[in-house]
Amino acid sequence: MAFLTNDKLVIVGAAGMIGSNMVQTALMMGLTSDICLYDVFSPEGVAEEMRQSGFGDVNIVATTDAAEAFTNAKYIISSGGAPRKAGMTREDLLKGNCEIAEGLGKDIKKYCPDVKHVVIIFNPADLTGLVTLLYSGLKPSQVTTLAGLDSTRLQSALAKHFGVMQSKVTGCATYGGHGEQMAVFGSQVKIDGKPLNDLISEGKLTHAQWEQMKTDVTKGGAKIIELRGRSSFQSPSYLSVEMIRSVMGGEAFRWPAGTYVKNDKYQSIMMAMDTTLDTNGCTYRMPVGTAEEMDKLDASYHHLCEMRDELVTLGIVPPVAEWSKLNPNL
Amino acid sequence: MAFLTNDKLVIVGAAGMIGSNMVQTALMMGLTSDICLYDVFSPEGVAEEMRQSGFGDVNIVATTDAAEAFTNAKYIISSGGAPRKAGMTREDLLKGNCEIAEGLGKDIKKYCPDVKHVVIIFNPADLTGLVTLLYSGLKPSQVTTLAGLDSTRLQSALAKHFGVMQSKVTGCATYGGHGEQMAVFGSQVKIDGKPLNDLISEGKLTHAQWEQMKTDVTKGGAKIIELRGRSSFQSPSYLSVEMIRSVMGGEAFRWPAGTYVKNDKYQSIMMAMDTTLDTNGCTYRMPVGTAEEMDKLDASYHHLCEMRDELVTLGIVPPVAEWSKLNPNL
Repeated sequence: MAFLTNDKLVIVGAAGMIGSNMVQTALMMGLTSDICLYDVFSPEGVAEEMRQSGFGDVNIVATTDAAEAFTNAKYIISSGGAPRKAGMTREDLLKGNCEIAEGLGKDIKKYCPDVKHVVIIFNPADLTGLVTLLYSGLKPSQVTTLAGLDSTRLQSALAKHFGVMQSKVTGCATYGGHGEQMAVFGSQVKIDGKPLNDLISEGKLTHAQWEQMKTDVTKGGAKIIELRGRSSFQSPSYLSVEMIRSVMGGEAFRWPAGTYVKNDKYQSIMMAMDTTLDTNGCTYRMPVGTAEEMDKLDASYHHLCEMRDELVTLGIVPPVAEWSKLNPNL
Repeated sequence: MAFLTNDKLVIVGAAGMIGSNMVQTALMMGLTSDICLYDVFSPEGVAEEMRQSGFGDVNIVATTDAAEAFTNAKYIISSGGAPRKAGMTREDLLKGNCEIAEGLGKDIKKYCPDVKHVVIIFNPADLTGLVTLLYSGLKPSQVTTLAGLDSTRLQSALAKHFGVMQSKVTGCATYGGHGEQMAVFGSQVKIDGKPLNDLISEGKLTHAQWEQMKTDVTKGGAKIIELRGRSSFQSPSYLSVEMIRSVMGGEAFRWPAGTYVKNDKYQSIMMAMDTTLDTNGCTYRMPVGTAEEMDKLDASYHHLCEMRDELVTLGIVPPVAEWSKLNPNL
């Protein structure tokens, strides 16, 4: 079997629903011949299931020991937070999961400072990703968070409304935070080559329907809980493994990623931008949108800043002015 | 995206852990552009997760309606049985799931008599597969059951013992039933090119270790429950989708499948044989083994016959002599 790389990939939270799916997804994609399953609960049962799937040439290791997991790690995907339960917002998870992110960042600094890329998906991912980056000492290009799930939700909703294949719906993107304050961008969207704005003008999608659709996208996670009786796990797993595939040099990732932003307008925050993931890690550009969309992005940024400042108040991270002492790359 | 086929694939039990994993696995393998998720519980949440994974050119339908699901179906994989619950006897499970299999067979006959292939994996699969075949009216080559999981368990155990990659362990096979009465065949196994029997003679694997390993293989499912706190779902899903891929014309399936057997020695039973899955469906040969292994296979066959006869007693299937009235292909 041909692999994209022989570098060690660590799946954090591998005993869970998302993590175990990530392992299978990574093996099916043929990402690497060296995969390590790490969790505080033993992921040995998941490892056994993978071995019993007959993936031939892969070294599959399961461990509950951080040193064993992270030593020599070159790629990491972490879903290793506490899960979101019905009725909880992503923000409710803030404190507990940011403390877990702090631990992850410190483990990275201690055991695998040469890691190439880390993808964080446990919620609220904008904040857990930020905390991981801060404590890991890595460069901003090396840590990304899952944000694409909102864009695929928009694409899926539009495809259903217009009765077309999803691949005919292009330019879907949400930027800013991954929480309900995200900015849904529609101005670049085309349906089968035709601008969405034209279709809205023609009444093929009414303004009211479009507003509802944008709101539904921001509540997409809650909808899955309603439909499945449990949090989504297959889609976040799949997309995050696609992200790590792209930084390994595989197929380009087609959706926005959450990335550390420091530019004229936004500072010291992790949020979804117009990103490219490749072997150089993540690079970003400011999204292009209407004045209204950019206002939404500003609002999303300010909401994220409030949550970041809450982390300062909670003592999980120092004031922003002191971050460069913890991580000179910031 | 290139697909193996544009024929309709139906995943039965798609709302469950195994079924939802099958859907994702089939989409990742690019099997077909037309996939239908069917379950008595709504599989809409699973369909949404798949759409939100961004598989572009696929028509993903979720339904609880048998007519919608099976009409025009060309391939079916079913994990749609009921799990064994506390207080249920083995016979309760046998009766309940074989009645579900009867319903599935009748749905196939009614809605998609032109289906090309059906893979059955809900337990006891040897019996549910047999009942499905009987009531569907399909040819024996068109219905197979999951049996390969026992062979991969043997391969994995041997790879661990000898410290080699699984791909270096060849010729692993278990035949007969998928339950604890299966026949584990070791005489064709090679480790890195060297016959297992030679390694046993040299004491590299003691007779006691080998006997224990064979017993462990037959109890592999219970081991996963012990390790994960739940039944295996990723490995049965993955292997069964590999089976349907091979009959669609994709990569060859590397493990034994359960198939309907009628030869000089064994009659009117579904069990794992030395099989080939391709676009002609399933063909089989008698396994090659030592006298002791063939005795084990005989014993497994007789155990399956007892369970089949229990189905006759329970009134789920008519006496074997009358089967050809229900299905002229038998």
